[in-house]
Amino acid sequence: MEAIPTDPLARLRAATASRSAAGLRRTLRPRTPDDDGLVDLASNDYLGLARDPRLAAAAAAAAVEWGTGSTGSRLVTGSTQLHAALEDRLREFTGAAGALVFSSGYLANLAAVAALGRGGLVVSDAGNHASIVDACRLSRGRVVVTPHKDVEAVEKILADRHEDHAVVVTDAVFSVDGDLAPLADLHAAAVRHGALLVVDEAHSLGVIGKGGRGAVHALGLAADPSIVRSVTLSKSLGSQGGAVLGAPEVIETLVDTGRSFIFDTGLAPACVAAALAAVDILQIQPELPGYVRARAHEVAAMARDLGLETNDPAGAVVSIVLGAPEAALRGAAVCADNGVRAGCFRPPSVPVGRSCLRLTARANLSSDDLVAIRRALTAVAEMKVNA
Amino acid sequence: MEAIPTDPLARLRAATASRSAAGLRRTLRPRTPDDDGLVDLASNDYLGLARDPRLAAAAAAAAVEWGTGSTGSRLVTGSTQLHAALEDRLREFTGAAGALVFSSGYLANLAAVAALGRGGLVVSDAGNHASIVDACRLSRGRVVVTPHKDVEAVEKILADRHEDHAVVVTDAVFSVDGDLAPLADLHAAAVRHGALLVVDEAHSLGVIGKGGRGAVHALGLAADPSIVRSVTLSKSLGSQGGAVLGAPEVIETLVDTGRSFIFDTGLAPACVAAALAAVDILQIQPELPGYVRARAHEVAAMARDLGLETNDPAGAVVSIVLGAPEAALRGAAVCADNGVRAGCFRPPSVPVGRSCLRLTARANLSSDDLVAIRRALTAVAEMKVNA
Repeated sequence: MEAIPTDPLARLRAATASRSAAGLRRTLRPRTPDDDGLVDLASNDYLGLARDPRLAAAAAAAAVEWGTGSTGSRLVTGSTQLHAALEDRLREFTGAAGALVFSSGYLANLAAVAALGRGGLVVSDAGNHASIVDACRLSRGRVVVTPHKDVEAVEKILADRHEDHAVVVTDAVFSVDGDLAPLADLHAAAVRHGALLVVDEAHSLGVIGKGGRGAVHALGLAADPSIVRSVTLSKSLGSQGGAVLGAPEVIETLVDTGRSFIFDTGLAPACVAAALAAVDILQIQPELPGYVRARAHEVAAMARDLGLETNDPAGAVVSIVLGAPEAALRGAAVCADNGVRAGCFRPPSVPVGRSCLRLTARANLSSDDLVAIRRALTAVAEMKVNA
Repeated sequence: MEAIPTDPLARLRAATASRSAAGLRRTLRPRTPDDDGLVDLASNDYLGLARDPRLAAAAAAAAVEWGTGSTGSRLVTGSTQLHAALEDRLREFTGAAGALVFSSGYLANLAAVAALGRGGLVVSDAGNHASIVDACRLSRGRVVVTPHKDVEAVEKILADRHEDHAVVVTDAVFSVDGDLAPLADLHAAAVRHGALLVVDEAHSLGVIGKGGRGAVHALGLAADPSIVRSVTLSKSLGSQGGAVLGAPEVIETLVDTGRSFIFDTGLAPACVAAALAAVDILQIQPELPGYVRARAHEVAAMARDLGLETNDPAGAVVSIVLGAPEAALRGAAVCADNGVRAGCFRPPSVPVGRSCLRLTARANLSSDDLVAIRRALTAVAEMKVNA
């Protein structure tokens, strides 16, 4: 066995050196409590609720009353009345027939797609989030990736299939590009071919639809039994975790067979309580989602006026394509120099050549914040011209 | 396409009916804050820290200071100084060179095994946790499952391999059977063949080794660069989340390429703070892990004396095999009638024919609790005799 290297870390070091040469190293930069005074355009805290005192008070009270951990799987000791209350409120708010809370949106997607698609056909949009890609792999079904937002391709795969069951899965609002999936057409195709449609509302809950009820609700399809939604509690709801919304049959299937539900510790009570408080706030302040979308349009318009390549944001996400990984890194540094924290996305988070800044609007951006954002984007545009 | 069913939920209903006939339906039973007064032998709160006021106070303060959510991926806005502090403390406590915190132990395992095993050989014990099984599938490597605790089989697979890199993965203490992996021998085999050894310390951190530093530390291998450990923050540490411990090369690899690290929202600050407080407590009360193990031995001895089939617990987990799913369900009901909450494990959590009660000892079980436990186990033994 002379060919086998004796130092298993040597291979990791070599791979790290290659990533370094390609501008693909990552560094963790721990934030201070005030984020060094930067205007946050990088987080997914779309409604600004993560720092809301009402959420903090709810989280603190839950940690005292219920403990700091859920102590086990949701099937054993990890379900509290607080979890049940959040599931009830999510159902009511989104118009779903049933809801099931997970400790992470990633794990919610793994369970929904893998359990519902098991051994069948799984049709997944090329732009879907990594958690959906992993979920497809775990389904042990036949996975077909269709071109981004190509309903015709989806329809053809469904029509030509030999499997008795099929699942179509898509993000509602795509995480980095910020565009909206053709949900109505996908739903029609799924119904025509007896398939389930799984829609990840991570970036649309709290942002799109009546009072932030999401993209499926906006289409009047909230109660449709052939649609399964996944949501996160960690973005517009300012907490942590995820949930699957769907028909009772779907929820029962996940409770009995969803591996990432059965074999994971339930969400911590403090996080459950914070998400509950966030849904309460959305109900008494239904105007918040409109503010996010308006701010996103303002930021995108600024970028476009400055000659930057940007999107027409469906929700909160404004992406500014800069091309090479190094350009995106420099762009983010320029933003920080001008008082704005921007997300910097490089492969594998985006396709090669599409490294970008990802700017996320927040409902509570002030006019001073917008002045800083304009200054930062102007500097990015100048950087691009001089590159 | 007449053969395709038009109601995609009909298949789910049929599958649910089959599970129901096989005694494999699950029901969520939300707990009350005081768990209906039952003695908890079902949770993984081995040190009783989930209800410790010091953890609750730390969680509450963090929610106020840092917000109720981490607001993004650890690579974007989801890393705070609190996350960095927890990683430092976990490193120091466990003697690891590096540490990386995840929002779930499930996601920590997915990243560790999938990123380190990618495209290589992955050798996994037949008794490993579901999250490891899923991680193996996601590695896109050649996965070989070896018989439970069979070091010879592992050695043979490693020796005969054609891949240039290999990962061996095992639980340290197995979740349901409660037995200990042959870690010293596995480590020797891994070193002989240039492989990494990934050890899941979910059920050993806080329970085994000096002051609860885990099974790898107990073997004097904490600083060994060929060993990667995963831990949970949701069991003995009474919070939520997980972490990977390992050499800097390992941590860098996960930061750059671990999909369930990169594409997941960082752990909520309240959970980070609670876990930090738990490590502090372990350091000032190093006797706690010994209490858990002593209580586990007492419970196992009771069960054995009553003629029940049980294990010799390596840590906190005492399993009592009852065979059929219905017997396990009845056993758990009998325990509850006698004031004890027991975990009830049925396929797919355990092999067919091995449905069992899973009793977990806690450091803070009182003598009254032990009286209730004896009464409950006596009733289970009578049930078994009369079955």
